[in-house]
Amino acid sequence: MRITIIGSGNVATHIGAALKNAGHRIVQVYSRDMQNAAILAYHIKAEPIDDLNNVDPDTDVFIVSVKDDAIPAIVQRLTFYQKLILHTSGATSLQTITEHTANAGVFYPLQTFTKTKELNFWDVPLCIEGASAEITKQLRELASTISNNVYEVDSDGRKILHLAAVFACNFPNYLYSIAQNLLEQNQLEFNMIRPLIAETADKALQSFPATVQTGPAVRNDVSTMDKHRQLLSGNPMMQQIYEVLSQGIIKMDKKG
Amino acid sequence: MRITIIGSGNVATHIGAALKNAGHRIVQVYSRDMQNAAILAYHIKAEPIDDLNNVDPDTDVFIVSVKDDAIPAIVQRLTFYQKLILHTSGATSLQTITEHTANAGVFYPLQTFTKTKELNFWDVPLCIEGASAEITKQLRELASTISNNVYEVDSDGRKILHLAAVFACNFPNYLYSIAQNLLEQNQLEFNMIRPLIAETADKALQSFPATVQTGPAVRNDVSTMDKHRQLLSGNPMMQQIYEVLSQGIIKMDKKG
Repeated sequence: MRITIIGSGNVATHIGAALKNAGHRIVQVYSRDMQNAAILAYHIKAEPIDDLNNVDPDTDVFIVSVKDDAIPAIVQRLTFYQKLILHTSGATSLQTITEHTANAGVFYPLQTFTKTKELNFWDVPLCIEGASAEITKQLRELASTISNNVYEVDSDGRKILHLAAVFACNFPNYLYSIAQNLLEQNQLEFNMIRPLIAETADKALQSFPATVQTGPAVRNDVSTMDKHRQLLSGNPMMQQIYEVLSQGIIKMDKKG
Repeated sequence: MRITIIGSGNVATHIGAALKNAGHRIVQVYSRDMQNAAILAYHIKAEPIDDLNNVDPDTDVFIVSVKDDAIPAIVQRLTFYQKLILHTSGATSLQTITEHTANAGVFYPLQTFTKTKELNFWDVPLCIEGASAEITKQLRELASTISNNVYEVDSDGRKILHLAAVFACNFPNYLYSIAQNLLEQNQLEFNMIRPLIAETADKALQSFPATVQTGPAVRNDVSTMDKHRQLLSGNPMMQQIYEVLSQGIIKMDKKG
């Protein structure tokens, strides 16, 4: 397919590279910032543009991978070309596009991307939603050229996935950063705790988290929790997080 | 060395197996529950006992791997044999043993263990502390027979490590379980989110978490956070966790 990438952020970069590697032709990369457009365009042999007036109409699909609140205005501009328009956002409904054109779909990769970190896109769950059965079929074919995990998910399901991703990715990463702070404030290396982070995730890949919960809260080990509270007494934010999560674990359903 | 394992839980099981594999002789395994003692003893070719009166004095070291609050009473019983006594607890000071005997040390594996899940013990950070330089040297030698990551850490440092481990392991695992709940309440598979969990941990192994934080909170994306709050409106506990962690991320130092 001939594909135009609107955006040059983390998601645009990884989807663009995966599609290029799968043999698709990336026509153009758009970014408000020409330098960002040029960097991605160079890697995937496309033309960089920083003005939507310069869109090449000879494309099959626009993949709009920009900040959520920028999607409506861009979609409105692109409808002029009467091509398929997809967005890649977990928290944005399909309706955000169908308000402007029926030639619409969603192509949501359920993964955390950083431009500079490579990953195997074949493992990335790709959640698709088409405005019609025909578009959904088309999206499934396109998605299957870059991922082994293609799921059909509607806008309501996608919102839940996006929220679950915050709990499974954004929040754990933040907690890792707290662990790092605690260690470094006490002249201990973050490296000491990396094997623990790896094993904790590995357990979740092989079993259900509720069944392998460990730590003082799940044992209701009051004396250890009190020691921890004392250690955190100089940091009200960390203390509050410790409290809320420990209370949650104490009340959790361990059956999983 | 001739080693006696006091305890038959997750830590005792993994340490016992690692020491056995390294060629040490495990003399006995003690548990209050004979069946638990027997299961571990069978695997590491030791004698199971459920009564401390039956301890075989022909041992070099007792590794006490029981619940924190059970350590003092057991240590007191074991001092009679005048052998080296170690505990494996992150939250317990060395002093808990030295109150009873100077022949004391700590052998703390900074990892999450589940009996039924195998792991490569060579990667487990082993934190050692001896009551004397001579004991510390002995512990370093013993630790080096089962782990490539041996650290000398005093009791204050170990408390911090243990607390950091709660943030890096116990809390993330609990958040995974919330993600699972959210998905299953909406007829979505937990499997869809497993690649995200793996990648999030993988990022923390390769970089510093604060520098790769993603999600609506770090972008201060108010409209997405409001959508998430609405989705969680039926669950005050999840909503509170969402709020506290999002506020923490908004205020975090992104420099890492």
